[in-house]
Amino acid sequence: MLVLMNVDASDEQTQAVCNRVEELGYRPHPLPGATRCAIGITGNHGAVEADSLSQLAGVAEVIAVSKPYKLVSRDMKSEDTVVRFEGSDATVGGAELALMAGPCSVESRAQLFRVAEAVAKTGARFLRGGAFKPRTSPYAFQGMGEQGLEILAAAREAFGLRVVTEAIDHESLALIDQYADMIQIGARNMQNFALLKLAGRASKPVLLKRGIAATLDELLMAAEYVMSEGNYNVVLCERGIRTFADHSRNTLDVSVIPAVKKLTHLPIIIDPSHAAGKRDKVAPLGRAGVAVGADGLIVEVHCDPDRALSDGAQSLYPDQFAVMTQGLRKIAEVVGRTLPEPRNVPAVVAVAK
Amino acid sequence: MLVLMNVDASDEQTQAVCNRVEELGYRPHPLPGATRCAIGITGNHGAVEADSLSQLAGVAEVIAVSKPYKLVSRDMKSEDTVVRFEGSDATVGGAELALMAGPCSVESRAQLFRVAEAVAKTGARFLRGGAFKPRTSPYAFQGMGEQGLEILAAAREAFGLRVVTEAIDHESLALIDQYADMIQIGARNMQNFALLKLAGRASKPVLLKRGIAATLDELLMAAEYVMSEGNYNVVLCERGIRTFADHSRNTLDVSVIPAVKKLTHLPIIIDPSHAAGKRDKVAPLGRAGVAVGADGLIVEVHCDPDRALSDGAQSLYPDQFAVMTQGLRKIAEVVGRTLPEPRNVPAVVAVAK
Amino acid sequence: MLVLMNVDASDEQTQAVCNRVEELGYRPHPLPGATRCAIGITGNHGAVEADSLSQLAGVAEVIAVSKPYKLVSRDMKSEDTVVRFEGSDATVGGAELALMAGPCSVESRAQLFRVAEAVAKTGARFLRGGAFKPRTSPYAFQGMGEQGLEILAAAREAFGLRVVTEAIDHESLALIDQYADMIQIGARNMQNFALLKLAGRASKPVLLKRGIAATLDELLMAAEYVMSEGNYNVVLCERGIRTFADHSRNTLDVSVIPAVKKLTHLPIIIDPSHAAGKRDKVAPLGRAGVAVGADGLIVEVHCDPDRALSDGAQSLYPDQFAVMTQGLRKIAEVVGRTLPEPRNVPAVVAVAK
Amino acid sequence: MLVLMNVDASDEQTQAVCNRVEELGYRPHPLPGATRCAIGITGNHGAVEADSLSQLAGVAEVIAVSKPYKLVSRDMKSEDTVVRFEGSDATVGGAELALMAGPCSVESRAQLFRVAEAVAKTGARFLRGGAFKPRTSPYAFQGMGEQGLEILAAAREAFGLRVVTEAIDHESLALIDQYADMIQIGARNMQNFALLKLAGRASKPVLLKRGIAATLDELLMAAEYVMSEGNYNVVLCERGIRTFADHSRNTLDVSVIPAVKKLTHLPIIIDPSHAAGKRDKVAPLGRAGVAVGADGLIVEVHCDPDRALSDGAQSLYPDQFAVMTQGLRKIAEVVGRTLPEPRNVPAVVAVAK
Repeated sequence: MLVLMNVDASDEQTQAVCNRVEELGYRPHPLPGATRCAIGITGNHGAVEADSLSQLAGVAEVIAVSKPYKLVSRDMKSEDTVVRFEGSDATVGGAELALMAGPCSVESRAQLFRVAEAVAKTGARFLRGGAFKPRTSPYAFQGMGEQGLEILAAAREAFGLRVVTEAIDHESLALIDQYADMIQIGARNMQNFALLKLAGRASKPVLLKRGIAATLDELLMAAEYVMSEGNYNVVLCERGIRTFADHSRNTLDVSVIPAVKKLTHLPIIIDPSHAAGKRDKVAPLGRAGVAVGADGLIVEVHCDPDRALSDGAQSLYPDQFAVMTQGLRKIAEVVGRTLPEPRNVPAVVAVAK
Repeated sequence: MLVLMNVDASDEQTQAVCNRVEELGYRPHPLPGATRCAIGITGNHGAVEADSLSQLAGVAEVIAVSKPYKLVSRDMKSEDTVVRFEGSDATVGGAELALMAGPCSVESRAQLFRVAEAVAKTGARFLRGGAFKPRTSPYAFQGMGEQGLEILAAAREAFGLRVVTEAIDHESLALIDQYADMIQIGARNMQNFALLKLAGRASKPVLLKRGIAATLDELLMAAEYVMSEGNYNVVLCERGIRTFADHSRNTLDVSVIPAVKKLTHLPIIIDPSHAAGKRDKVAPLGRAGVAVGADGLIVEVHCDPDRALSDGAQSLYPDQFAVMTQGLRKIAEVVGRTLPEPRNVPAVVAVAK
Repeated sequence: MLVLMNVDASDEQTQAVCNRVEELGYRPHPLPGATRCAIGITGNHGAVEADSLSQLAGVAEVIAVSKPYKLVSRDMKSEDTVVRFEGSDATVGGAELALMAGPCSVESRAQLFRVAEAVAKTGARFLRGGAFKPRTSPYAFQGMGEQGLEILAAAREAFGLRVVTEAIDHESLALIDQYADMIQIGARNMQNFALLKLAGRASKPVLLKRGIAATLDELLMAAEYVMSEGNYNVVLCERGIRTFADHSRNTLDVSVIPAVKKLTHLPIIIDPSHAAGKRDKVAPLGRAGVAVGADGLIVEVHCDPDRALSDGAQSLYPDQFAVMTQGLRKIAEVVGRTLPEPRNVPAVVAVAK
Repeated sequence: MLVLMNVDASDEQTQAVCNRVEELGYRPHPLPGATRCAIGITGNHGAVEADSLSQLAGVAEVIAVSKPYKLVSRDMKSEDTVVRFEGSDATVGGAELALMAGPCSVESRAQLFRVAEAVAKTGARFLRGGAFKPRTSPYAFQGMGEQGLEILAAAREAFGLRVVTEAIDHESLALIDQYADMIQIGARNMQNFALLKLAGRASKPVLLKRGIAATLDELLMAAEYVMSEGNYNVVLCERGIRTFADHSRNTLDVSVIPAVKKLTHLPIIIDPSHAAGKRDKVAPLGRAGVAVGADGLIVEVHCDPDRALSDGAQSLYPDQFAVMTQGLRKIAEVVGRTLPEPRNVPAVVAVAK
């Protein structure tokens, strides 16, 4: 259920509608747009008594939403969502493409600082790195935990990068909400609804990766879970789907980008590393991602990938990442976007704590 | 890494090997077989110093395991695992096929008791019913929570059934471990490794459903997560996979049953309801499941499916379930199995609490 | 477009409707049922002038068909089609399940006669064997061609079996229509529409295998191609679909059987050999096929599979096939079907021509 | 089996090796490279007597090929194949990207000439258009047949375009080899081996589309069928694969491009129209195709798509195609390629014959 306010409706009128929605036992989500305000209503299993709302002052229209998602829908909010980060020029969904890069796992302060320096030099504004790793095998390296988060936070200060890292349960999510700038929900947890609800109550933006066999509707419903709890800063991520094709680790579904742009106002980025599975395919897939209209890329970069504790085979060397970024700059122009410029980075000594 | 003890090795010798493994910083899992004991070793990222183990008294052989799973493997334990339930004749993996039935969700005491009575009369020994529901939409019925567990526990007492119900996070899992007899991990959480580890520390057997796009290796690795924490009572469940085929909700992958039987000692049952998505296909798929060699079935049954709060379209009426069970009895014979006999059930009044 | 005649309509009335349809430039397909006759109309790209037909004598109703297929539909013919073979008790789609067995390829007269004798002893009424082989590699054995067909025809005479063999182009199809009893269209040619049209003009029944990635609608449309040319004796065959699952060669889609039974009057059999890819999974899948309601099985059997020129790994030994058949007999009862009884076969000397 | 000649081997030496191969009963395929000549050997089911070849004059090495394909492999020919067209600057696989465009079906002379003029103006050198249409329904428009080929040939003369059109059986293939410049084998016929062999004996280059569920190996083996008959001018085409994803008609598998480039010397182009299924996604997918490294695009363009007899929904308007082409020009630069320049086209009156 969606209430569209008049173009000239006052803030008081909007507030009065919200109050009435709450009296009915539902939850209002005011979403100011460029020209008018819309109010999403959630918590209603069936039809809300629309009559009582349509007669309130300032209401233009009450729309019954047939799609199972509401808050993520372009019907509710036609302008693109731009996710912003306090104290930084970094955005996701704006004119500038978001570049996120870094190692699969944080392995040590020295390892992370080396990569972070290289990443910062290319102009990328986001540093990725896992501290809690969801590994297929219980016997594989499971991440450094809170210590890894401390190292990530130190690198943020040193290089002026926003930190993106994955949460796997309620404990890690609470820590990440405190240490990092963006909470990643991995592909395997895309329908871990308990975790999605917690992410919806967190203070930081959420990077939600598409599950390996998730339909577009399921991806949007997962985003809806996060938004329905009040966190509207959600960024989607396509990272390849599982098909019969055996020549790449996963099949990067570039078609999902224009489909997402049509249905939702949320940004979507591409992860070419997990789709490729092999270093030599990362740059071609990254180019395809920008060309098809994604809002950014998240790329695995490691200074010594042959010794990486996870995902080494698909990690780029820093200079490969820099070269790829150059090529992306021209493609970005074709789709009306920009890339952040390379910048000077102060020499930082990564003293082990 | 796997240590095979001699056929005549003493318990003391086995204990000494376990002690040595712990000194090395790893975790031993003694698994007694019919003729000899095997000791699985987990926690070793690379190669354990095998030499020091192969020279201990009573050791027949030290085997480097190439498959990523160890504890689930038939190499480690050649006899079929039979999961037993204290104070009950119910088993999973024995000569008698396990029949689990009940509604998708617990909706009320009256609703559950009506179904439970019908289920018990067919001879089935397990009652299924969800109290915590992982729903695709945040606005759909999410289950009765702990109150639902209380109703399930009451039905267990009234009808002598074992209760199977799904956990979705650490809180629900702790409650289910206390109220129920078997902890279900749903398909969407098959790679929620944090939850799998918690299930591995629980006291009750685990029913682990295959993810909608999980390979057989991934399913076995998920079971390995549970077992690596010390809970060896794991039952697998095939419930259909996601394919291009659009004539059924999911594609029931019957081929996985003989493949599972070859690789692991763990039992596997089939869920024809979620595969079918429609009531009229449940019985044919259930027959196929028994014919192909599954250790049991889990079936959705509801007395008034048109008014069910979830999954009504795929729920059988009680008399359809009873008829299906009759047909299964003859097919079970062909594969050398039995079905529990129908039994008299005392009239129970489902007084609302 | 479908014309339903009255229950008491005369043959003359039916003929008059057919004549009118032809005058309109379309093609009539009279399909007599148990209680009344239906007339399918094909060749109409859009709507036929229904008014002119509905007013003719004996016409009960004119139905606009929304599904893209017409002749295959149960709407047009509600009774199950039973495919019969002149001079034989063999049927497909009747009470007796159709058992088809034999080697992947005809390799020699001696090889085929050994298998044919074993097959005939189990009671099976159909002999399979390829003379024209569609091989993935141009360098692999491509079949014996017409010489293979001569050997098949000789085996038919010697053992009283109906012969099923695959056509791959117009030349092989013409030969098979002359030598054999049933024309197989393989999975790779399911949408070779030129070949389907030729099969529709042939005199022998057609066994149409589902393509590896064909939806149910596409399978039915392929059958429609054959029927639209006038050959109404079409038998469908499920032989596994391509999915991400890597534990079997293909994923046997048992759910398609009840779905086919609902939409079409045509029979459908199962090929467990190509689905399994490995000998030890053929019998379990065959049992699942009968249990789910298929009208028969087609199974690869070879007396010396390790030396087979194709598909050896998935071919059963004759005694394995005989044992499997015994188990199927009991499962057939559960679904209200029978299996042909074992029979004595005269000793035949397979003199090389 | 592959024979590598010395860098300085004479033509006579190469010929002598070919003669010897023929004496052994196999077929030699000399493939001259930039620095040396390789000779592929086909027709050998097992191992050729390599010794007798390795001792011949001018032979550097005899390599046993483990991959099932030989002639398509980069091991046999390391330089990229550039397919050329007599009397034209058009190429596929060279520095200039190949642009192929036109309607799904030839519907009339007027329709085709209008599109052809628009296509030629953008600079594209190839005109596509179907005269024999493989349609899912036997009741749908099946193409204009030979009359359509005559119209295509007339448009070639009028606008200086190379004509690409699809063959569906031996009759249509013979006609197309006579009328057109490139023989398309459609996705549904990718494993119609009888047709592939005929294409291998034709005089014109072959455009081979990947089957909807074909693995990369299967695609390469299909190309091997064509090449093994002596036609080495094969161009591959990715047009989307069948997956569970329902937001596009097919899933465009961009990852296959770098994988193809690694394994084979053959060019590969992308068909964004069939992958998209909807007009508004064609340009983004086309951009992704060029960015990922494809050798060209084949695009459906129609002047009045709402009235097209087939595939109207996915056909671009001519001006949309022109705009898309402009964007591709800049992306081509990033991957070191060029696009043909727009050109003036003489006004042509499409007089109906």
